[in-house]
Amino acid sequence: MFPTYDVIVVGAGHAGCEAAIAAANLGAKVLLATMNMQTIAQMSCNPAMGGVGKGQIVREIDAMGGYSGIVTDETMVQFRLLNMSKGPAMWSPRAQSDRMAFALNWREKLEAHPNVDFWQEMVTGLVLKDGRAAGVRTGLGLEIPGRSVVLTNGTFLNGIIHIGEKQFGGGRAGERAASGITEQLVELGFESGRMKTGTPARLDGRTLDYSRMEIQPGDENPGRFSYTDTPELRDQLPCYMTYTSEAVHATLREGFDRSPMFNGRIRGLGPRYCPSIEDKIDRFAGRDRHQLFVEPEGRNTCEIYVNGFSSSLPEDVQYKALRKIEGFENAKMFRPGYAIEYDFFPPTQLNATLETRRVPRLYFAGQINGTTGYEEAGCQGMMAGINAALAVQEREPVVLKRSEAYIGVLIDDLINKGTKEPYRMFTSRAEYRILLRQDDADLRLTPLAAALGVANMDARMARVDEKRRGVAAIQEELRNHSVSPDQLNGFLAASGTAPLKQGVKLSSVLTRPEMSLAGLARELPALANFLAPYDAEILNLAEVTMKYEGYIDRERETVHKMNRLEGIKLSAAFDYETLSNLSKEARQKLNDLKPATIGQASRISGVSPADVSVLLIHLGR
Amino acid sequence: MFPTYDVIVVGAGHAGCEAAIAAANLGAKVLLATMNMQTIAQMSCNPAMGGVGKGQIVREIDAMGGYSGIVTDETMVQFRLLNMSKGPAMWSPRAQSDRMAFALNWREKLEAHPNVDFWQEMVTGLVLKDGRAAGVRTGLGLEIPGRSVVLTNGTFLNGIIHIGEKQFGGGRAGERAASGITEQLVELGFESGRMKTGTPARLDGRTLDYSRMEIQPGDENPGRFSYTDTPELRDQLPCYMTYTSEAVHATLREGFDRSPMFNGRIRGLGPRYCPSIEDKIDRFAGRDRHQLFVEPEGRNTCEIYVNGFSSSLPEDVQYKALRKIEGFENAKMFRPGYAIEYDFFPPTQLNATLETRRVPRLYFAGQINGTTGYEEAGCQGMMAGINAALAVQEREPVVLKRSEAYIGVLIDDLINKGTKEPYRMFTSRAEYRILLRQDDADLRLTPLAAALGVANMDARMARVDEKRRGVAAIQEELRNHSVSPDQLNGFLAASGTAPLKQGVKLSSVLTRPEMSLAGLARELPALANFLAPYDAEILNLAEVTMKYEGYIDRERETVHKMNRLEGIKLSAAFDYETLSNLSKEARQKLNDLKPATIGQASRISGVSPADVSVLLIHLGR
Repeated sequence: MFPTYDVIVVGAGHAGCEAAIAAANLGAKVLLATMNMQTIAQMSCNPAMGGVGKGQIVREIDAMGGYSGIVTDETMVQFRLLNMSKGPAMWSPRAQSDRMAFALNWREKLEAHPNVDFWQEMVTGLVLKDGRAAGVRTGLGLEIPGRSVVLTNGTFLNGIIHIGEKQFGGGRAGERAASGITEQLVELGFESGRMKTGTPARLDGRTLDYSRMEIQPGDENPGRFSYTDTPELRDQLPCYMTYTSEAVHATLREGFDRSPMFNGRIRGLGPRYCPSIEDKIDRFAGRDRHQLFVEPEGRNTCEIYVNGFSSSLPEDVQYKALRKIEGFENAKMFRPGYAIEYDFFPPTQLNATLETRRVPRLYFAGQINGTTGYEEAGCQGMMAGINAALAVQEREPVVLKRSEAYIGVLIDDLINKGTKEPYRMFTSRAEYRILLRQDDADLRLTPLAAALGVANMDARMARVDEKRRGVAAIQEELRNHSVSPDQLNGFLAASGTAPLKQGVKLSSVLTRPEMSLAGLARELPALANFLAPYDAEILNLAEVTMKYEGYIDRERETVHKMNRLEGIKLSAAFDYETLSNLSKEARQKLNDLKPATIGQASRISGVSPADVSVLLIHLGR
Repeated sequence: MFPTYDVIVVGAGHAGCEAAIAAANLGAKVLLATMNMQTIAQMSCNPAMGGVGKGQIVREIDAMGGYSGIVTDETMVQFRLLNMSKGPAMWSPRAQSDRMAFALNWREKLEAHPNVDFWQEMVTGLVLKDGRAAGVRTGLGLEIPGRSVVLTNGTFLNGIIHIGEKQFGGGRAGERAASGITEQLVELGFESGRMKTGTPARLDGRTLDYSRMEIQPGDENPGRFSYTDTPELRDQLPCYMTYTSEAVHATLREGFDRSPMFNGRIRGLGPRYCPSIEDKIDRFAGRDRHQLFVEPEGRNTCEIYVNGFSSSLPEDVQYKALRKIEGFENAKMFRPGYAIEYDFFPPTQLNATLETRRVPRLYFAGQINGTTGYEEAGCQGMMAGINAALAVQEREPVVLKRSEAYIGVLIDDLINKGTKEPYRMFTSRAEYRILLRQDDADLRLTPLAAALGVANMDARMARVDEKRRGVAAIQEELRNHSVSPDQLNGFLAASGTAPLKQGVKLSSVLTRPEMSLAGLARELPALANFLAPYDAEILNLAEVTMKYEGYIDRERETVHKMNRLEGIKLSAAFDYETLSNLSKEARQKLNDLKPATIGQASRISGVSPADVSVLLIHLGR
């Protein structure tokens, strides 16, 4: 009944959609299996993409040929570039999307791809052949043959929803959980664990008093996630901000004895950086208020997401507390917030390709790996989809380095350090974050995708080349053109920076913190003329790379040093117990994880610099 | 946490949506409770509205101020007026809708109504006070107080999905069943039963060869369902026709021993007039092929609905058989067809208001009453919503007569005759079908809705008045204006009808079957001038009512006679056992059902004309 698919993707959330399209764009025949074709690409939690660290990931997904950026651009209702007051490494795009439009758009894109087939049914297990993944088994008892399988089960594996003292099975509000997969994997020797995440109440926007909140409009000149020509955002919708208060906290505390978080009923650990409101009150007892973002779920719906008010307190407590929030005095709920516990598999059981070590051709992506966030899920899905396709095609896998992409940081962290609580991305997780800016993910990654043979990369590569040429031309112009004190001293004084004593190159003026390319161009008509043909993206990249040249060069050097360690291969067959100079913990961890390189070994928690030296000596370096 | 709602509607399918909006438009405060706000107004089966008998119902819903017609008009991709070769009583509008757009459109309309609140959670039971419905109880254990409750549970009550020998709980593919309500109602003394319905496989349209099928385009001048100014349909999508064959039947027969229909696993009776393909093969063994309609699920999806191929045979049998159909040789399925069994409550337990006899202020609408079809569900929902609102407002209920609307026929049939198998509407169920045409549902029903105080009826009533005046003016013109043999005999001869011997009124020419208003206008410039200001709807109604005047008058007379019987009230307190001249069956049925009028009594199966005479004599008539 089914052909043998190259890649079977289980689950059609952010990870599953990206996995399917990535494999399809490498020419693989893909089956996307989902419990419900009506709920493909749901934004199960907040209706937003991006944010600090996460926005960079979406740009990277886009640069690699993934679709999250395009879908977001085509369905967004608000865009903001966050952290503009900080350095460019911290600039992070974030968009509110129309939740329904986002889901429909993804489905349309998947359907439009000739390599993607669909099957609507619960997958309950894997088919194995010679110890390798060879297909999936469904609730109907069907066996669908595949040369590789990507599991992206999200919160559905044995999902249990908690609201106050009540709990019931479910993968999402109103949707049932999935069973069978965990049990089989555990039987195969996988270690599994429980995690927990939560979501806030959804409110009826018609019952909110926005005049009592602070408006938060989108950027005046909204940007985009995609490096392609996605449409410009028009008619942005505002979000609003409001705050909890002592009165709100007091009301919430009344329910703490009925909280599944506090009475031990929830065993899984929740996301530290996306805590429930009761967590925040508990952990930051000194804070007399917490900020809440009131986010529209779409253009044509009154449904509202209350960002910051995730809760699994009893629904009556949530309701009473909500009504004490400014602007929410008459709020009606569509549904209460809840916590959900689900199975995950500690990601130290994976290779850097996201293939499981135990079962070849089986890949995990998204929450099943203990991560949280659409962006984290999406990029894992994409990498798993790429590597599954490449494996089937008997080609070399692709692993992004920590110095190449946040995606590299994420996966390297996961497989080496594992995670006890839902892992989310931060810029602070990256050691080379000035190299991983959102403005040049295309320059970093699109050539790689093009070399892999990802479909439709020609126009993208042309754009990358144009951008690179433009940046180089501008930088050359700035390095070669001098400016005299006469020309600029008035402007420099007005800008609060020292005057020139003699003519200098424009490039050296630009490195002053007070100076910008746009500012200089306003003063220097010749420069303005020279820059006129270039678009904002190129101008911005030229400016950033010139202003931060020193930092960038320094990080590049560090990367270079580290790469030498990355280049030193370790054998998977080697028994580290034979190296008695290693610490006991290092021997155990190294034998457990069998890192592929010294670099990877150095990032395993419990492997110290001294242990790394022992390894280097052993290898004769 | 909740205010006391006037009307709580459980379920947000076609019945639930119409119930909510109808009550809201009468000023009632409504709560719409649904398991999943993402799946409001799903077209769970085929993506089409209307059809023979059903299209008339949608027009009636629209005329009463319901929204099914408007939502369909705003989301349709194809429109056809069926049966145009038959008399105008048979003309039936039918539209294909974009399934996703249809659902979103309904949700937007509901959200736009200030009187409609939402609650997303499973309702598991009723709250009763003094024997009356006083609210609902939810899965979370919440009690939501209400002055009336409308149950529209569709196929969700203890739903069991069957595919071949497999069965599992579910309310729809990918969605879980609901429990608790049946059990409570049975405990309260309600009789419940099981019914069954089915749905065909969904196919991947990219794998079909349309060149091997017959195209079925929409009407050249597509009409509309709504009497309001809904947008004109542009860019229609075609459907396609193909056929099963002996080879397809033989393949299907191979699976009969594994069919839950034939091996007795399914106990509920299915819809006779919407049978599964295996049913059709079984019942019409002589037929060597059956027609299939290949219907698009929307503008931007490749998902295809195979109308006519509903099946609960094993999925591999469905698949093998599908691939033997012309054009389906390479078809891929998204999911197999299935049968679903669900609880219903024999509708003889209802009053004509759709209120249950046993529990006041509790209303049932849709499949819970043993009907099938979106249109049947929608109109029941509307009537239940209206009557629930009116009851709360302590106003007189509204019951449509069999002579006023198909809706009246439907409900009267249900409550008096009950139904053993899913009930669907046909024109043949109406005894006055020349009075229940799709062209004048507005004239029949909009004044009633306006008199009730349904919101926003002013423009509709103005349109009704304009239409009425226009029709009257045209008819007067035709009755008063003569035409001479000279003017028309050439045309009459060309049309194959007898020449005039002397001048006659235009009205008498029009009654000839060969003549049409448009044809006459082409011949008679003065007539064309007179008709020019009137739109097609008015012209058509004037023509139809004039051509069929005799039939219409005759039916009106019968109605008048019958209405006298309807006017003769029967007491609910009367014990029919005391009338020994009644047949035993009549005494039982009358005591069971306690009809409100002689007319109603006369339509109870088992009550003979002789019994009616006994009743009349008893009442002194």
